[in-house]
Amino acid sequence: MRIRIAKEFQWEMSHRLPFHKGDCKNIHGHTYKVRVEIEGDTDANGMIMDYFDMANIMNPVIHKLDHAFLVDSSDSIMLDFLTANNFKHVVINKTTTAENIAAYILDIITPSFQQYKNIDILKIRFNETADVFAELEKKL
Amino acid sequence: MRIRIAKEFQWEMSHRLPFHKGDCKNIHGHTYKVRVEIEGDTDANGMIMDYFDMANIMNPVIHKLDHAFLVDSSDSIMLDFLTANNFKHVVINKTTTAENIAAYILDIITPSFQQYKNIDILKIRFNETADVFAELEKKL
Amino acid sequence: MRIRIAKEFQWEMSHRLPFHKGDCKNIHGHTYKVRVEIEGDTDANGMIMDYFDMANIMNPVIHKLDHAFLVDSSDSIMLDFLTANNFKHVVINKTTTAENIAAYILDIITPSFQQYKNIDILKIRFNETADVFAELEKKL
Amino acid sequence: MRIRIAKEFQWEMSHRLPFHKGDCKNIHGHTYKVRVEIEGDTDANGMIMDYFDMANIMNPVIHKLDHAFLVDSSDSIMLDFLTANNFKHVVINKTTTAENIAAYILDIITPSFQQYKNIDILKIRFNETADVFAELEKKL
Amino acid sequence: MRIRIAKEFQWEMSHRLPFHKGDCKNIHGHTYKVRVEIEGDTDANGMIMDYFDMANIMNPVIHKLDHAFLVDSSDSIMLDFLTANNFKHVVINKTTTAENIAAYILDIITPSFQQYKNIDILKIRFNETADVFAELEKKL
Amino acid sequence: MRIRIAKEFQWEMSHRLPFHKGDCKNIHGHTYKVRVEIEGDTDANGMIMDYFDMANIMNPVIHKLDHAFLVDSSDSIMLDFLTANNFKHVVINKTTTAENIAAYILDIITPSFQQYKNIDILKIRFNETADVFAELEKKL
Repeated sequence: MRIRIAKEFQWEMSHRLPFHKGDCKNIHGHTYKVRVEIEGDTDANGMIMDYFDMANIMNPVIHKLDHAFLVDSSDSIMLDFLTANNFKHVVINKTTTAENIAAYILDIITPSFQQYKNIDILKIRFNETADVFAELEKKL
Repeated sequence: MRIRIAKEFQWEMSHRLPFHKGDCKNIHGHTYKVRVEIEGDTDANGMIMDYFDMANIMNPVIHKLDHAFLVDSSDSIMLDFLTANNFKHVVINKTTTAENIAAYILDIITPSFQQYKNIDILKIRFNETADVFAELEKKL
Repeated sequence: MRIRIAKEFQWEMSHRLPFHKGDCKNIHGHTYKVRVEIEGDTDANGMIMDYFDMANIMNPVIHKLDHAFLVDSSDSIMLDFLTANNFKHVVINKTTTAENIAAYILDIITPSFQQYKNIDILKIRFNETADVFAELEKKL
Repeated sequence: MRIRIAKEFQWEMSHRLPFHKGDCKNIHGHTYKVRVEIEGDTDANGMIMDYFDMANIMNPVIHKLDHAFLVDSSDSIMLDFLTANNFKHVVINKTTTAENIAAYILDIITPSFQQYKNIDILKIRFNETADVFAELEKKL
Repeated sequence: MRIRIAKEFQWEMSHRLPFHKGDCKNIHGHTYKVRVEIEGDTDANGMIMDYFDMANIMNPVIHKLDHAFLVDSSDSIMLDFLTANNFKHVVINKTTTAENIAAYILDIITPSFQQYKNIDILKIRFNETADVFAELEKKL
Repeated sequence: MRIRIAKEFQWEMSHRLPFHKGDCKNIHGHTYKVRVEIEGDTDANGMIMDYFDMANIMNPVIHKLDHAFLVDSSDSIMLDFLTANNFKHVVINKTTTAENIAAYILDIITPSFQQYKNIDILKIRFNETADVFAELEKKL
């Protein structure tokens, strides 16, 4: 049976948008939430994938981002400061907009989900705050 | 006008997954939630279907499942115990994973929604807990 | 990169459905919520559109509807009363079902989003209450 | 054992504040929510009161207010209109602020809860919208 | 400075109320939630207690109850069945009403919080479902 | 009539706890929420205070904290960096634990609420994340 399942994860992180003309250029943070959706065929037990296995894939990603600063590699002011003071941070090679963070997470989790041959669609809904999100889907 | 509408319903139920290697093989329960979505054409009053009519279709289903044990027909340990003690239960002929419960509900409500000739898509989003769901859509 | 983003807005409004055989023919109200989704290509900064710009488009619409009565132009009983007493109201030329309100909002915001050449899908999810919604998507 | 329990109820209603200098003088509505709390001693079964019995007391009140207009008796403009058109309404002898509605509900449910000799505190938390409430407690 | 802090925890569990005349005598389950509140004086760092330390106390309790059956010691039908089949269960010596479960949890966590000399009030708000709770406070 | 009312506000902010042995010493952020509660006597219109007036007091505070870094005056590493780069920040003379931020907000809003002679209790519930809060009440 073809079906879609999803599971949500949450963490606390800081970022800034250096290019932004409004308040987002400042250092601020959010309670971020990501919903991972997978679509495919169920196995003999009636599952696409065990929710615990989804958690096993996602928890290291959440752990890496939680209580960290997500920094754009071109933002040398922040990157130097974070490195000099040994503050936990994760570097991505683009701005940290909701759109780009969604794409970044989708990219790093793709290989893990590709191990599951019965899954052919992977989707991320990424909430920057409770009332805004970016979402992105790809074929595996 | 072609449009989609949805309504949510909630209930309290017990189940177990006999095949599961983790804690889900034990008797446990959840606050379950189902969102029913229908897509089709609006009538002269500007409705696909009255929300009260959706409730009239769904309430008997919810009432049947509420405060019950949803049991896989091959789980004879549970089935014998539930029957012997006259405990409220509902039997389905597959495991009670989120995927299978979603498909079970979609199946039993399909005939009621097929009465409405203006509706051609029926979808179920089924939450086992607040942070996980399974969803399934079919053409009527 | 092609992606979808969304932002939600909320307001307090009154309406009635003159044709309704149940309680909805009476004057009543809801906490309404609308989620605006746009899909398209990101710009050089990694954004489809700034969430602040989405708010700038939506806030005048929300402000116009908030603490108002949304009245069907054929409901002369209500329309005369609202006009005679100078009560804030918004007239639409169809019944005020969730389906029609969703379509009404989608229509009035379309021109603003069409200014953005990188956006080609606009979608409205419109919640009448927390557990029911109507949704509608169009190509720009 | 002395303990406190609570249950929530929700409905859709319209009102206005004739004295208000802002938008609240207009006819508008909300998704209202009330949380009823009772404190007292548990019985031999380990309950202060069955949640189903709380629902039995509250449901007629919710049913009376749902899809209605709550009107201040001194607001003759509205009262005449509602009566002339046979629109469902409930009259209270004070303004329909959150504070007064909370007190009104507390008053009308008090006799029903006073039947239970083991309960000595009754409290109402009344949400006009998701982010504002009024609350009031009394000794029975 | 005297202040109160709180943290919430959630789990999935099954129970039944053998004495109940309605549906609650059946085996069913809920997504349970508990909010632990502590009141006392802050230390030199401006904390009553680190939220991580609250989690360290509560997580073993949640782990013990999660995906289990909470059974009243006098309910021999259930207790025999759970034991015979080696299903995860927790026995309490009273009925499993919301009131009694709240008191049970308060009792078992009290010693851990009593280690903290700056805390003098411990409170439990225990949600059986999203819309009902029982709450209980004690001096340490 | 004596009654209590409340209104909630939300914002996005960054902070760190220099003394913390765990992840909180790093730069991170949260979606913060504050609920302001006031208790007192209603006026002739049946209000303690108009919710719009509560918003008028709170909005400048929220605006000041939103998209900012809340920094402890003794955290010279952060303070120097924020000042040197002209990043929006708010300095408080204690650590930025939930307990201290709650007390800080209560202090700065007290004078505004003291203008209302009918209010004698002011309370803050301050959520660092959705599942943890600190709360503090004082007599005006």
